[in-house]
Amino acid sequence: MAAPSVAVDNLNPKVVLNCEYAVRGEIVIHAQRLQQQLQTQPGSLPFDEILYCNIGNPQSLGQKPVTFFREVIALCDHPCLLEKEETKSLFSADAISRATTILASIPGRATGAYSHSQGIKGLRDAIAAGIASRDGYPANADDIFLTDGASPGVHMMMQLLIRNEKDGILCPIPQYPLYSASIALHGGALVPYYLNESTGWGLEISDLKKQLEDSRLKGIDVRALVVINPGNPTGQVLAEENQRDIVKFCKNEGLVLLADEVYQENIYVDNKKFNSFKKIARSMGYNEDDLPLILASLVMNPPKAGDASYASYKAEKDGILQSLARRAKALENAFNSLEGITCNKTEGAMYLFPQLSLPQKAIDAAKAANKAPDAFYALRLLEATGIVVVPGSGFGQVPGTWHIRCTILPQEEKIPAIISRFKAFHEGFMAAYRD
Amino acid sequence: MAAPSVAVDNLNPKVVLNCEYAVRGEIVIHAQRLQQQLQTQPGSLPFDEILYCNIGNPQSLGQKPVTFFREVIALCDHPCLLEKEETKSLFSADAISRATTILASIPGRATGAYSHSQGIKGLRDAIAAGIASRDGYPANADDIFLTDGASPGVHMMMQLLIRNEKDGILCPIPQYPLYSASIALHGGALVPYYLNESTGWGLEISDLKKQLEDSRLKGIDVRALVVINPGNPTGQVLAEENQRDIVKFCKNEGLVLLADEVYQENIYVDNKKFNSFKKIARSMGYNEDDLPLILASLVMNPPKAGDASYASYKAEKDGILQSLARRAKALENAFNSLEGITCNKTEGAMYLFPQLSLPQKAIDAAKAANKAPDAFYALRLLEATGIVVVPGSGFGQVPGTWHIRCTILPQEEKIPAIISRFKAFHEGFMAAYRD
Repeated sequence: MAAPSVAVDNLNPKVVLNCEYAVRGEIVIHAQRLQQQLQTQPGSLPFDEILYCNIGNPQSLGQKPVTFFREVIALCDHPCLLEKEETKSLFSADAISRATTILASIPGRATGAYSHSQGIKGLRDAIAAGIASRDGYPANADDIFLTDGASPGVHMMMQLLIRNEKDGILCPIPQYPLYSASIALHGGALVPYYLNESTGWGLEISDLKKQLEDSRLKGIDVRALVVINPGNPTGQVLAEENQRDIVKFCKNEGLVLLADEVYQENIYVDNKKFNSFKKIARSMGYNEDDLPLILASLVMNPPKAGDASYASYKAEKDGILQSLARRAKALENAFNSLEGITCNKTEGAMYLFPQLSLPQKAIDAAKAANKAPDAFYALRLLEATGIVVVPGSGFGQVPGTWHIRCTILPQEEKIPAIISRFKAFHEGFMAAYRD
Repeated sequence: MAAPSVAVDNLNPKVVLNCEYAVRGEIVIHAQRLQQQLQTQPGSLPFDEILYCNIGNPQSLGQKPVTFFREVIALCDHPCLLEKEETKSLFSADAISRATTILASIPGRATGAYSHSQGIKGLRDAIAAGIASRDGYPANADDIFLTDGASPGVHMMMQLLIRNEKDGILCPIPQYPLYSASIALHGGALVPYYLNESTGWGLEISDLKKQLEDSRLKGIDVRALVVINPGNPTGQVLAEENQRDIVKFCKNEGLVLLADEVYQENIYVDNKKFNSFKKIARSMGYNEDDLPLILASLVMNPPKAGDASYASYKAEKDGILQSLARRAKALENAFNSLEGITCNKTEGAMYLFPQLSLPQKAIDAAKAANKAPDAFYALRLLEATGIVVVPGSGFGQVPGTWHIRCTILPQEEKIPAIISRFKAFHEGFMAAYRD
C-alpha cells in the first residue's frame, strides 16, 4: 500500500506555503464563524451584524447593479425574450437594441458557447472603440484580450514573464496581494518599491531606480513594473507628470509596464483626473515597439446622451460615485479625528489605508499572541464590533509601520454607526494598552 | 537603452514552446482565414460555408440553449424583473421560483459580486444534493469547488500536484489536449497510457501498470491518473467492471484519480450507462481517506416531474440527445463505408475519432510538406470542402497510426451534405495518392 498520495507536505510548495491572500485570510474566516454564531445564537455577541469592510465588493453590500448593463446581460443570456411583445415594456429600447447588436456578433447568436480565445471579436471592436475615444489614440481589437476578471489577466502575464526564481517584478508596497500571490505562484521574485505615505502615497522614481539597481546586483532579471492607478489599497490617483516619468523609466530600463487601471471610473477629487498609461505613452510618442504596455482595465460602452437609458444610467452612476465620495470623506475624517491614527485622502478606487501608531504595550501583546500588531488590532476590532478590515501586513508596508485597509463600500446609512462603533473600540483599545 | 523587454525567446518557454492546443490550432486558424475570404470574395472557394467539426461547441453551431436554464440565468442577472407583472407571462413559474431561491442564497441578493472562494454556498448545497441523488452516497458542499468551466479546475489541480519536472501525471492517449497543455504549463511530465482502439478504446490496467513502472524506473514520481469518461476524443463509455479496476489501481498505487466526467449526460447506447467514479469508489467501501478523487463534472438541478417546465425541459433535452445519437450513427456509418477508414462507435460524449489508413504516397507528400500525415489530410479536407476537423496528432495516438477527431455537432439537416462532401473528398484523395 502506497503512502498517502495527497498531503500538505507533498503538494506544490509555491501554492501551499508562499501564496497568501489577506483579503480572504484569517480575519475573514473568523468573521464568517462569528456570522454563523449570530445566526444560531442571536444576542451572544456584542453586535448584531458583521460589517464587511474587507473586500471591494459593492453589490454584496447592497449596491444596486446598474440597470442598463443588467438588461443587456439578461437579454443576451435568454435571447428568446427578444421575440416577445412584453419585452418592449419590461426593457429599455436601447438595451434591446444593444443586445440585438451583441448577439449578431456572436457565432450562433447565443451566449454560453466557447468564443474566440481572445474573446468575441465584436465585443473587442466595441472595447477598442471605447479605448480610442477615451485616450484620443487608435486602439486595435487584435491587441485586446478579454478575461473574466483582472486576476486571470494578471496570472497570465506572470506566467508569461516569469521563467524562474531569478525573474523579478517591481511591485508597489503596499500592493494588492493578487500581485504578490501571483508572483509567488509562478515562482518569481517580488522586487518591492515603497509608496511614500507622507506625500499621499507618492511613487518616487528615485526609489524605483534604487530597488531596480539593488536587485540587479543580486542577479535578479527585472522584467516588469506593476503600477496600480487609482491605488489599491492606498486610494491615491497619480499625477500626469509622475506617469510620464514612470513611462520614461520603463522605456529606458526595458521593463514591461503592467498598469492596473480597474478603478479608472472611481475618482472622488476635483483636482485629479484619470489618465491611462496608454494615453500618456502615446502622447510621448512611444508606440508598442518602444514600450510593452499591458492594461488591466474595465472599459465599457455605456449609454450616451440621446439614448433611451442615458438619463437613468447617468443618475445611477453619478449617485453611486457621489455617495462613495461622501462615505470616503466621512471615514477619512473619522480616522483622522482619533488619537494614533493618520489617514491620507481617498482620491480614487474604493479604499482607505490609515496608519496606526500603536502603543508599545499593544505591540508586545500582539507579539505574545504571535500576530502582527495590525492583525492583532483587526481581530480585536472584529470581536468587539463586527467590523471586518484587512491588516496592512497583508499588503506590505514600511517595516515598523502598521495600517488597516477599510473599504468605503458599506451602505451610506450604515456609515455613522460604523464610525461610532469604530471610535468607541479604538478609544477603549488605546486606553487598555496605554504605555 | 535596454534590449527589447518582451520577445518570444525571453518569455516562459513552458508557455511558448511546450504548450500546444490543436483544437484551436493551425487548421482552425486557416479555417478562419477562409471564412473571411468567403465573406470578402464570395464564390472564390469550392464551398460556400465553413463547417466547424473541430470543437465541442454545440450552441455556436445552432443548438438552442435549454429554455429553463436561460430563464433562471436572465432572472438572476436582472432581479428587478421579479418585481414586474409582465414577468409572469414571459417566464415559467418554476424558473421564477428557482431564481428567487438562488438570489436568496447570494449575499446582496444579486449576481455579479465576488462570492465565497469555493463558490456560493447555496449553489454548492444544491449541487451536493444533486450528486448525492445521482450516486446514492452522501455529498458535502464543503468538498465542492465551483470553477468557470473545466479548464480552470484542471489547471488548479495540476498547479497543486506538480512540484517539478519529476512529477508525472498518467494520461490517456488519445487525450483531450487540455491535459497535455496543462501538464506542460505547470512543468510536469505526461506519462502516457494507450487506449486500445481494437477493443473500442478500452482502458487496460496492464498497460497502466507497465507505464507506471517504466516511469518510476526513470525517477518520475507519478501523482495522479486522468480518466475521461465518456471519452474525449474517443467517445467510449467505460464499463463498470473496468471502473472498479481503475479505482483499485489508484488506491494500491497511491494515485489521485482525476475523473473528467463532463459528458455524463451524453450517452447514446442502450447497453452502457454512466457511473461516476465517486459512486464506484463508495460502492467498494472507499472513502476520501482511502482515495483522493477529484471530479470535474457538470451537475445540475434540472426541473423534476410535476414542475411547470418539466415537460418542455424534457422534450428539449431528449430532442437534443436523440438527434446527437442519430448524427453520431450517420457519421460513423459513413466513415466505415469508406476505403481506408475505420471508426469505433460513439457511445458517449460528442466525438468520433476514425482511424485513417493512408497510402504511402500521401505520407510522403505530408512529409515533404513538413506536416503530420493526419494534419496534411485535415488541411486538404478543409481546403476542398470547408469541413474543419482536428488531426489525431493533436490528441496523441499509437505511433504510426493516424486519426481525425470530428464532432457530431453540426445541425442535423447539414449532416447529409457533410457526408457527401467528405466522401467525395476522401475518394479523390485516395485516388490521387494511391500507391
